[in-house]
Amino acid sequence: MNPVEIIIKKRDGYILTEEEITFFVDRFHKKEIKDYQMSAWLMASFIRGLSKEETRNLISAILSTGKTLEWDFPVLDKHSTGGVGDKLSLVVVPLLASIGFKVAKLSGRGLGHTGGTIDKLESIPGFRVNLSLEEFKKIVEEVGCSIISQTEDLVPVEKDIYSLRDVTGTVDSIPLITSSILSKKIAGGAKTIVFDVKVGSGAFMKNIKDAEELTSWLIEIGRSFGREVKAVISDMDQPLGCAIGNLLEVIEAIETLKGEGPQDLKELAIEIASTVAPKEIVREAFESGKAFSKFEEMVKAQGGDISNLVPLAKVYNLSLEGSGYIERLDAYLIGEAVRTLGAGRYRKEDLIDPNVGIILKKKVGDYIEKGETILEIYYNSKETLKKAMELLRKAISINKDEVRKRTLIYSVYS
Amino acid sequence: MNPVEIIIKKRDGYILTEEEITFFVDRFHKKEIKDYQMSAWLMASFIRGLSKEETRNLISAILSTGKTLEWDFPVLDKHSTGGVGDKLSLVVVPLLASIGFKVAKLSGRGLGHTGGTIDKLESIPGFRVNLSLEEFKKIVEEVGCSIISQTEDLVPVEKDIYSLRDVTGTVDSIPLITSSILSKKIAGGAKTIVFDVKVGSGAFMKNIKDAEELTSWLIEIGRSFGREVKAVISDMDQPLGCAIGNLLEVIEAIETLKGEGPQDLKELAIEIASTVAPKEIVREAFESGKAFSKFEEMVKAQGGDISNLVPLAKVYNLSLEGSGYIERLDAYLIGEAVRTLGAGRYRKEDLIDPNVGIILKKKVGDYIEKGETILEIYYNSKETLKKAMELLRKAISINKDEVRKRTLIYSVYS
Repeated sequence: MNPVEIIIKKRDGYILTEEEITFFVDRFHKKEIKDYQMSAWLMASFIRGLSKEETRNLISAILSTGKTLEWDFPVLDKHSTGGVGDKLSLVVVPLLASIGFKVAKLSGRGLGHTGGTIDKLESIPGFRVNLSLEEFKKIVEEVGCSIISQTEDLVPVEKDIYSLRDVTGTVDSIPLITSSILSKKIAGGAKTIVFDVKVGSGAFMKNIKDAEELTSWLIEIGRSFGREVKAVISDMDQPLGCAIGNLLEVIEAIETLKGEGPQDLKELAIEIASTVAPKEIVREAFESGKAFSKFEEMVKAQGGDISNLVPLAKVYNLSLEGSGYIERLDAYLIGEAVRTLGAGRYRKEDLIDPNVGIILKKKVGDYIEKGETILEIYYNSKETLKKAMELLRKAISINKDEVRKRTLIYSVYS
Repeated sequence: MNPVEIIIKKRDGYILTEEEITFFVDRFHKKEIKDYQMSAWLMASFIRGLSKEETRNLISAILSTGKTLEWDFPVLDKHSTGGVGDKLSLVVVPLLASIGFKVAKLSGRGLGHTGGTIDKLESIPGFRVNLSLEEFKKIVEEVGCSIISQTEDLVPVEKDIYSLRDVTGTVDSIPLITSSILSKKIAGGAKTIVFDVKVGSGAFMKNIKDAEELTSWLIEIGRSFGREVKAVISDMDQPLGCAIGNLLEVIEAIETLKGEGPQDLKELAIEIASTVAPKEIVREAFESGKAFSKFEEMVKAQGGDISNLVPLAKVYNLSLEGSGYIERLDAYLIGEAVRTLGAGRYRKEDLIDPNVGIILKKKVGDYIEKGETILEIYYNSKETLKKAMELLRKAISINKDEVRKRTLIYSVYS
């Protein structure tokens, strides 16, 4: 087989065979097929599309270049397609563990607006995210859940492909997103995978149609690998919950686990957990404090200390010059503002400030008086504060007429 | 400007601005935009297309990264899109010089079936193709013509882009071919450019429609750079002339310059030259021996010696088991056979054997008796002979009914 012929076949819109896809991925992994050839193939695949069968074969090919985690008991994994203020993993993982699931989550660092789950956990003093796979397995077995940083030796080629997609304009493709997500999840060895698919300005998927399409790909192809797959599609047009920023989100997740915290965050956590367990049991885990205790256990097992979580930042109260109903709190722009403050990365090597971020005091549909605080900005530099405020002013709009609260949950696949 | 945004804009089918194209090429030249980004952009441009305006801007951008040859007098360049047995440059360049044109030809090595013009010239003992630009200019001025190897410092970025296209399945795009050809020709400083566009199995362009399309792009965009542009579209479904192979082609070119040689080669040489000069003057240059004298002068000026051109190879006479009219002499497969013999390259670093090749004794439309020689194979290894013969048997077909000779010239743009 010839790499150029495989690229040309996809370029011209033909379906590739399993052998061709396996060959292409395997030789890329062995560095015989070069980055510039993979990126040309990715662009051809982006524009011409990949069928579900091709995507399945792509995942198999990626898996065969790496290794798969083996578990002695059935484990569950939860994956979010990413959003602004999305601290759900910190809530749902211990929640499900507290009702008997074994939850093993390999998570990434954020390259978007705000940190990923790993960055959030690292804002807890002492918390270790780089455990060996042996330690990880032991904690999952003994505590019931653990979240660690994606290890590179499971499917290293997926990381190489993703890095290329990121710099060649080939990210937003449903087949490529599906292959990226599922290859990592399947390599993690989970028997059950629960997807939290976000839709809206702060998410990969900007409209419901695309979100439903991606969800159907994740479910159909995930199940073809013998996994139990569940999903919830929820709103990401405004941030989830009120806190955005690494430590601020950890604090909000803890409040939520204690039965306090924002209504939308709690509601979505229950909905996601209920795809695999009866809703009354899920609610009980919250109310009884079991979910929070499990979180404490996990943090302790991974060396963390949550006794004194205080953001080291100055606080600026942002208010508006008019009054009215809040019509829009654009998640994308708020995410950009928080990144500007230092909570997210522009480049892989950037360091994150765990203390900065935003606390929303109002959400879409709420009424706000002139001069009332709409949000608090936690900042550590006047310059970044100024830039963040410019973005925030663009992110917010109000209306004299009453505005309906946003729908939080669009679809549940259980 | 952001490279990824430019890639995405083209990926989604939008027209890029002059600034965007200039930025992309310039940063690629400076190695700030990486190979894998250029190849993703090339694939997007291949599939979505580039407008003539974008192609013009691409050429300008390529030119601005390099330098342009300056001449004190108007010079002419002749360019072929490449074919099997295409030794026309060796004939047309001295022919036009002998009637008063200054012909300055920067030529490439072949990466196809058979060698390029430079490889052919190197089969002449002593012939120097790597002259300095000063020597080149001096010979063009004093002799009237010179052919040297493409120097890399004129438009180095074009070479880098071409190398990527070659290994990423992005060669056969009319806008990209146009930009590749015209950027080199314009950098060479020619006031007049004559294109010899080939169509058929042994050419880039497989059908007349594509050949006409490419020709119209070359003419329209070439003229927009203030150049006089002429073109002839001719057949490349069977090889041109009878000789295929480096030294064999030089010998045939010399015979043709002496007024002998195959009819089709002479006819096409006259047609091409007649796009810039009256046909009777062109014919007279052949018949008077002026064209051949000019070739001798050029060879001498570049250190070559044509007094004893004898291919150092064994000869095998191929005959057929039946008789009939020759219906097909597939240029592509004959080219592949000649490459197998050692006359062409598979990889850039391959060495060429100047002595090997094929002499056709019959062409399409000719009648052949059983056992009569259809072609001679010049070979230096029994193994390559065997492989070449396998390809040649597939390349040839005959018919009991009379077969018309192929049309040689499809269109002339003068």
